[in-house]
Amino acid sequence: MDSSLLEKLAARQAGICFYGMAPPKAATPAGELPGIVTRQLERLGPLRLDGLIVYDIQDEGERIAAPRPFPFLPTLDPETYAHSHLAELHLPKVVYRCVNRDTPQTFGRWLDDVDRSSSPRLAVLVGAPSQSARIGLSLTDAYAAARERARNLILGGIAIAERHSRRQDEHLRILAKTAEGCRFFVTQAVYDVTATKSLLSDYAVALRERGEAPVPIILTFSPCGSEKTLAFMKWLGIHFPRWLENDLRLAPDPLASSLALCESIFAEVWDYARDHRVPLGINVESVSIRKAEIEASLELLRRLQRRMGT
Amino acid sequence: MDSSLLEKLAARQAGICFYGMAPPKAATPAGELPGIVTRQLERLGPLRLDGLIVYDIQDEGERIAAPRPFPFLPTLDPETYAHSHLAELHLPKVVYRCVNRDTPQTFGRWLDDVDRSSSPRLAVLVGAPSQSARIGLSLTDAYAAARERARNLILGGIAIAERHSRRQDEHLRILAKTAEGCRFFVTQAVYDVTATKSLLSDYAVALRERGEAPVPIILTFSPCGSEKTLAFMKWLGIHFPRWLENDLRLAPDPLASSLALCESIFAEVWDYARDHRVPLGINVESVSIRKAEIEASLELLRRLQRRMGT
Repeated sequence: MDSSLLEKLAARQAGICFYGMAPPKAATPAGELPGIVTRQLERLGPLRLDGLIVYDIQDEGERIAAPRPFPFLPTLDPETYAHSHLAELHLPKVVYRCVNRDTPQTFGRWLDDVDRSSSPRLAVLVGAPSQSARIGLSLTDAYAAARERARNLILGGIAIAERHSRRQDEHLRILAKTAEGCRFFVTQAVYDVTATKSLLSDYAVALRERGEAPVPIILTFSPCGSEKTLAFMKWLGIHFPRWLENDLRLAPDPLASSLALCESIFAEVWDYARDHRVPLGINVESVSIRKAEIEASLELLRRLQRRMGT
Repeated sequence: MDSSLLEKLAARQAGICFYGMAPPKAATPAGELPGIVTRQLERLGPLRLDGLIVYDIQDEGERIAAPRPFPFLPTLDPETYAHSHLAELHLPKVVYRCVNRDTPQTFGRWLDDVDRSSSPRLAVLVGAPSQSARIGLSLTDAYAAARERARNLILGGIAIAERHSRRQDEHLRILAKTAEGCRFFVTQAVYDVTATKSLLSDYAVALRERGEAPVPIILTFSPCGSEKTLAFMKWLGIHFPRWLENDLRLAPDPLASSLALCESIFAEVWDYARDHRVPLGINVESVSIRKAEIEASLELLRRLQRRMGT
């Protein structure tokens, strides 16, 4: 594995750059899979990335009463997709794993597999989407098992600014998860600049009080080029300030507008985090599978890289 | 009266510039009043203002359960203070009037006085601070009486972005009050850029749907140089985003920081409103009577005037 990501994480450096994607649907006909993989290698190969994030998509139907704008379709196993199908892509893979679907046994077997790997492995463990949806392993138990059984596993966590707006404690979750072993955090798509700055601010204040150093916070950015994508992102829990939603809805070219908005949000948060000494990175994704939105995400990645000077 | 403010209001122009202040306390010893008036004339005289706003301070104790950080002290009558004590200040006076303290008779007598005035008079009518505090005239009845009895009365209204965050209908109140005769609106102190942009956005969208033209929205800015001022402004209902509150609390020089924050908030909202064709103006005030904060408000006024190019 390219060691530069590990070095950047160890040095808690700003500027880490990921692209994020979900694996293809599990129902993808076997004959179509090589074509999909080839297209993804072509897209991702030329990008100057520190790593590829591969999501583990859950049916979050229990989290929210509103109907899901797109139906939930199970995907291929993210671990297999990242390490086998995309083996040719010579980039560190950060694989998400919903431990809510694990038992101590299945999670233990996975840790043993990781431990047998010759190189470090990166993962983000994801808990239940809601308290009531909890059926499997808890995040705390999963972190404890990981610390004990797989020393070469490098863990990241999830940080949600929208949750901070409601409960004002997301910075404490970041600190607790850091104590449990997380070395970086990935947000959901950032459209609420105030919530994001407030989370970073409370994190910086708490670090100062404790005399601790920050870990990299990876901000996710995702183009939003249609009403349908907007509805889906809102369903996922991403908050759009009212003015921004109006501007997107009324824009002659919503996709171009969303890119400009993401870029200006990033610039504001980047400057703020630099002044408050929190190292930021980026993760760019497309929640839509429309070609235009995927290509816009690649363009957004290049623009944010320019902004970071990487 | 200098006609330029009236012309700007008639033309619904951007760039109107007010300074806002409360009259001295009613308990001010008569001997001290001339000195206070002289100092205010010296302060306000050199400023390039379109008008002076004189507030009518209510005891808003019923609006909120938390104790008031500063005790409520009744002031001199704003009408008398604006037109008699400050008669030498050759500026249009915009006088606030809490109609909640009026009966139809007292309000009618005031309208008759206004109507006898040889020149136009400007006022902002203020309703009860909360539903439960309603004892006197309603705003709707006051507007109706004003339309009927005082043709030379030019009315402004109050617009509160924080209320828009909670209820999403402040733009509809602005439109309704415009239909009732208001020709401009004054906000409370702006520290929440998102709420302010969202209100302006919904206002612009609604105007476009109705084919109506906007009236000037006067944004109030107020320095915040101490924990005590911050507590008081929060008590008044002004929302500070968490990050901004942290930055103010931890700033080596909170007063200087608050000026820089106000200036950058203004720049962002000004650009946004220009792009969405809503004419903005400013009203600068100090909620504190500390000399440093009052002087900072004058400095802030000059900076915002430079930003507006006025």
